[in-house]
Amino acid sequence: MQVMIERLEKVGFSATLLPFGDTLNFWAVRGDSGPLFAFAGHTDVVPTGPEEQWRFPPFDAVEQDGMIHGRGAADMKGSLAAMVTACENFVAQHPDHRGRIAFLITSDEEGPATNGTVKVVEWLEERGEKIDWCLVGEPSSTDWTGDTIKNGRRGSLGLWLTIRGVQGHVAYPHLARNPVHLLAPALAELAAEHWDNGNDFFPATSFQVSNINGGTGATNVIPGEVALVCNWRFSTELTAEAIEARARAILDKHGLEYDADFRLSGQPFLTAEGELVDAAVAAIAAVTGRETTLSTAGGTSDGRFIAPTGAQVVELGPVNATIHKVDECVRAEDLDSLSAMYEKILENLLARATA
Amino acid sequence: MQVMIERLEKVGFSATLLPFGDTLNFWAVRGDSGPLFAFAGHTDVVPTGPEEQWRFPPFDAVEQDGMIHGRGAADMKGSLAAMVTACENFVAQHPDHRGRIAFLITSDEEGPATNGTVKVVEWLEERGEKIDWCLVGEPSSTDWTGDTIKNGRRGSLGLWLTIRGVQGHVAYPHLARNPVHLLAPALAELAAEHWDNGNDFFPATSFQVSNINGGTGATNVIPGEVALVCNWRFSTELTAEAIEARARAILDKHGLEYDADFRLSGQPFLTAEGELVDAAVAAIAAVTGRETTLSTAGGTSDGRFIAPTGAQVVELGPVNATIHKVDECVRAEDLDSLSAMYEKILENLLARATA
Repeated sequence: MQVMIERLEKVGFSATLLPFGDTLNFWAVRGDSGPLFAFAGHTDVVPTGPEEQWRFPPFDAVEQDGMIHGRGAADMKGSLAAMVTACENFVAQHPDHRGRIAFLITSDEEGPATNGTVKVVEWLEERGEKIDWCLVGEPSSTDWTGDTIKNGRRGSLGLWLTIRGVQGHVAYPHLARNPVHLLAPALAELAAEHWDNGNDFFPATSFQVSNINGGTGATNVIPGEVALVCNWRFSTELTAEAIEARARAILDKHGLEYDADFRLSGQPFLTAEGELVDAAVAAIAAVTGRETTLSTAGGTSDGRFIAPTGAQVVELGPVNATIHKVDECVRAEDLDSLSAMYEKILENLLARATA
Repeated sequence: MQVMIERLEKVGFSATLLPFGDTLNFWAVRGDSGPLFAFAGHTDVVPTGPEEQWRFPPFDAVEQDGMIHGRGAADMKGSLAAMVTACENFVAQHPDHRGRIAFLITSDEEGPATNGTVKVVEWLEERGEKIDWCLVGEPSSTDWTGDTIKNGRRGSLGLWLTIRGVQGHVAYPHLARNPVHLLAPALAELAAEHWDNGNDFFPATSFQVSNINGGTGATNVIPGEVALVCNWRFSTELTAEAIEARARAILDKHGLEYDADFRLSGQPFLTAEGELVDAAVAAIAAVTGRETTLSTAGGTSDGRFIAPTGAQVVELGPVNATIHKVDECVRAEDLDSLSAMYEKILENLLARATA
């Protein structure tokens, strides 16, 4: 963070350190008014795993055969470096750019993520600051840098479900009600349910049972209840409320007695179109001459905390083939290419008309 | 046991103590040759539970308002007493009866039942002794003594089943195969399956899942497998092999990958008809003037160890309303009535023709 702040202050950014709890974050901004573009990212990394399995020490950033090796090379210190150099180059060309350029940087994205981006977003809201365009540097690419932009994420809805029956002896089934048997046809229907078709940006909503447990351990006792933990990853075609209503309708149709605790862990978000997506697609085309793909696949990112403020959010970063693995690495040239893309995005959004 | 042996030896029985492991058993027999009738029973009882909840101390055999109170009063020390007095009375009337009368008494029926009746049966087989008719003193009655005779028991078949899928992340369901989802329609079919109609002596075969467990505990992981423990209580219309074949056909039809471990814990047995059933039915009619019912309901008894030797086996004992409960008790008059029934059965089977 100190290296970034020093470089950014040299080109006119003013930075504010934002320690929340045990987590250090910073916000840096250049410009006084107008639309606010923010680079978002994190300086923390996942653990190395067994260091003796690495070809090179994971924190030495050894460059060999064109690859920079080290934990965080791709996720996402490489992106942070590209953001800084992109700004340096853009400001040199456009010292009097319109709007504002900012950095929202945390050191807790891979961890619990409680004192990181979510707190900085609250701090910004308290100050009346509103991000218009946010570019998250997560490694979004699959084969070549820029082949994929993430322009949204699916929602995640959890369900803790208990089906109640009546416990009894297996020799006297007429005196018991087996909740596993009662559940079975409803579970078959939930598993076979076609929740939606997804849309241009999202795959179809999926339902998965992650845990199921019933029984006392005894082999001659009909259990009194069976407990399930389930999860939906859902598209913007559905809401958590709609999914809950449909799940309850299936459970009710089968006459089940149950307790259902639905917990929403993330609303889906999508930046289907707009200036930011256009700027990013055009920048990738300008730098590589190739077309990019918009995708909403994969797990969660800090974009989920920024999108609800109304910001347009996209994720663009290097190839993610080695992230979270031993021997994480990134092609050095790809970071130059990424820096050029970031610079071009700034240009597309914040350069003053020269006509 | 000592009290029983003393009384029996006084009327011409010769007794052999049969200690196996930690369990004391005895075999007593009167007569030298001819058909062998055996009373079978146990001196052990289930635990009392909280003694302070009993109206009377559970081992004092307090008699009040015509009821004898105590643990084992109905299950089955009362029956043992009735067996002994029945023999005393029968021998007094028929000192020269035909065939042989025996007692097969264990002190481990309520426990693991490994060193009890099963070992005595082995001991008898080694000596070439074969029981023709066996009357087990289990409390078979529901409302009045003798209203029900148990003339068989259902079989019991266990299944330890593991359905295999492919573990994965709930966000990437296309890379996984959820074994809970794969199982659900097959489980619904197993639970809905009509295994048989039973027959005149057996209720329909029943299938029950006693335990189901799948999942790592994590809420974002699709489990790699799900494990079930199941049980069939089956009639003489089916065999363990037939059930296994049908269960596998259902699992195979749904294309499941699974490991299935079927374990037979008891073959069904039935004494549908014959001299013993006739003698018992007639004895109850003679003593009470009422008709009895043949039944195969309920759990297991030591009859399962004796029936496979080819013996006819019936269970006849007092009303079972209080067995295994606090304040177990039996009507004193009912034991007199039971003794009269036992005596009449001996008469029907072993009295010499007087014509």
